[in-house]
Amino acid sequence: MKRISGGITAPRGYKSSGIKCGLKKSNNKDLALVFSEKKAQTAGVFTSNEVKAAPVILSQSRLQQNPDARAVVINSGNANACTGQQGLDDARDITALVAEELDILPEEVLTASTGIIGKPLPVDKIKAAVPKLISELSFSGKQAAEAIMTTDTFIKETAYNAELPVSGSEVTLGGMAKGSGMICPDMATMLSVLTSDVVIEQELLCEALQEAVDVSFNRISVDGDQSTNDCVFLMSNQLSNNQPIQTKNEDYKLFCKMLKKAASDLARDIVADGEGATKFITIQVKKSPTPGQARRVARQVANSNLVKTACFGSDPNWGRILAAAGAGASGIDPQITEVSINGVKLFAHGLPAKKSRGELGGLMDAEDIDIEIILNQGSHSAEYWTSDLSYKYIEINAEYHT
Amino acid sequence: MKRISGGITAPRGYKSSGIKCGLKKSNNKDLALVFSEKKAQTAGVFTSNEVKAAPVILSQSRLQQNPDARAVVINSGNANACTGQQGLDDARDITALVAEELDILPEEVLTASTGIIGKPLPVDKIKAAVPKLISELSFSGKQAAEAIMTTDTFIKETAYNAELPVSGSEVTLGGMAKGSGMICPDMATMLSVLTSDVVIEQELLCEALQEAVDVSFNRISVDGDQSTNDCVFLMSNQLSNNQPIQTKNEDYKLFCKMLKKAASDLARDIVADGEGATKFITIQVKKSPTPGQARRVARQVANSNLVKTACFGSDPNWGRILAAAGAGASGIDPQITEVSINGVKLFAHGLPAKKSRGELGGLMDAEDIDIEIILNQGSHSAEYWTSDLSYKYIEINAEYHT
Repeated sequence: MKRISGGITAPRGYKSSGIKCGLKKSNNKDLALVFSEKKAQTAGVFTSNEVKAAPVILSQSRLQQNPDARAVVINSGNANACTGQQGLDDARDITALVAEELDILPEEVLTASTGIIGKPLPVDKIKAAVPKLISELSFSGKQAAEAIMTTDTFIKETAYNAELPVSGSEVTLGGMAKGSGMICPDMATMLSVLTSDVVIEQELLCEALQEAVDVSFNRISVDGDQSTNDCVFLMSNQLSNNQPIQTKNEDYKLFCKMLKKAASDLARDIVADGEGATKFITIQVKKSPTPGQARRVARQVANSNLVKTACFGSDPNWGRILAAAGAGASGIDPQITEVSINGVKLFAHGLPAKKSRGELGGLMDAEDIDIEIILNQGSHSAEYWTSDLSYKYIEINAEYHT
Repeated sequence: MKRISGGITAPRGYKSSGIKCGLKKSNNKDLALVFSEKKAQTAGVFTSNEVKAAPVILSQSRLQQNPDARAVVINSGNANACTGQQGLDDARDITALVAEELDILPEEVLTASTGIIGKPLPVDKIKAAVPKLISELSFSGKQAAEAIMTTDTFIKETAYNAELPVSGSEVTLGGMAKGSGMICPDMATMLSVLTSDVVIEQELLCEALQEAVDVSFNRISVDGDQSTNDCVFLMSNQLSNNQPIQTKNEDYKLFCKMLKKAASDLARDIVADGEGATKFITIQVKKSPTPGQARRVARQVANSNLVKTACFGSDPNWGRILAAAGAGASGIDPQITEVSINGVKLFAHGLPAKKSRGELGGLMDAEDIDIEIILNQGSHSAEYWTSDLSYKYIEINAEYHT
């Protein structure tokens, strides 16, 4: 398995495009299309927020009825959320037009939106742009990755290929994503499309996606907020002609590994591009009695504004880390808990390690900060990724007006 | 029942003092004492954080063994948290010295600390200051209220008196508190001492305190972080000579009302003085199917960095409010949920209200922002208080070094 260049168009049979249709004041690209030349069985994971945007409702219902898709149309600049029946009608209209122009069925078009909540989608602008969107389809994934960005500062794409051990066929997996604010575990607010050419049973495809999301997009936190529009799609058009994956054999395991790696690349990029982020913080909780407690403790630390501001200020404040880990009767025992930052043990046996200012100086200056919390109560682990909390975050979010 | 001037020394028989003993770089006051001339039955509520500071462990265990107390000694500038056996020994030593100098029993002295975590308490400085602390005891509460401050910018005290309807006696209740960062529901990180002269059964005193804390200190949020040192003490020295309150009669109800009012005053002051706060935000969730859901939804909105930055930016961003309310499968139904800001309905029937920019202009300019979320699913309510998230919060917390 190796990382290759490119993104969603790296596997065989996918094209994409990204153009401007006028939804953004910035006049940046705002409309993207991913197209599979052949029917692709598709799995989706959607926001657990009770407030679901129209495209989420529509795509979720289409996938429930029929997992075969050919295209995903995505706009940025407007979330089409809290827009009632009109929002649903708008999403249906756009997918219908895309289907018509591509000569496929409306049910084969999925959709996603990101941007401002509660404003009617400028459907006419989008519809007027659809012919151009289709005419610009190409084997490059960059334009689409750019068109789904909102406050992102760089495009996020990744791709891998590998030879399956059982069937000997080469399969490829590509992906793109956007962040970068409102990022919280159990769907960070983000969109991602993953594409593959693997031949696999639909049930296994869904299971593989959920598993990959659980250890990637569901483990990141920028600000603890969860969006109305989160979704991840995984399409597979079966063009690799591998012996179909029907059991959890070695081929399945390798595909899962690729998928987790690709989803992790994108999730890490989202954190690195978190609004105002200056640091990439990895939180590892180890030796927990249960997986749930490990996740909970890691999440509490990842979501702590005090930990995040300490990281921004390059302060090795293990006290804030320990307090965040212990909050809300989390079940940790401070007498046996150990806290390390960047490999230096700062707290153990109920006491701070004796370190001089000199020993700690510069410990947090790096852009990557690794926080390790060893609970010494069991054998389960969890890892979260988060960014620091800076002046810039406040600027971005206080000056973003509805 | 009326509010009167003063704080912890407003009821009969209480004295207090607050002095400098050299724990703070700023050289501000850092050591406080509250003293009751007569034995006071005392109730306490403590942090639910698994990481409990030494003074919390000591005071909690003393109250469990014997609810009668005579004094509370509090230092700021050092939390005496994560300090192991030495921390416990230090807390015991200090209370023993205070007891000796006051000629009372060590078990009658409670203690609390606030400040930096993980540094040994400078016991010698505190011990050297104890004689002065005692000699300065007076009927003013202001010096003590000042000495417990950390990043607080103003002292927090309140007092009420009332004539009990059944017994006809006048009772008085006073209190002080400190905030102001690391404030989260289910014990905000804060300290508070409440004093009264009421005669009441110990069990009812404890119940009254827990109830008051639940609707005051447990309903505030500055940054979602929960401290290792939270505690609230309620002392009652029974000097009012009222007919003892032994049942939940009208006297008990009035006392509870006073207590809730005083605790709310202090809790609201803590939010108003939240680190970097420029706005006071009240979140009311109404018509919820259960009290737990009402609280959860209110807390999610109160803890949302995106809602808090929108308030800082004076942006009537009901979309962020709704998204925070719906996060994590909270059980709300966006089709019937209504969102208002400062009395203006912005979202209902699944759609944003049609408001012009002119109608919304200035809606959030006031310092007080009232967010109302009506779920239309039942009859339960919850209210939370929080502050906005500003540049100043980042400055305070990124530049506070261990």
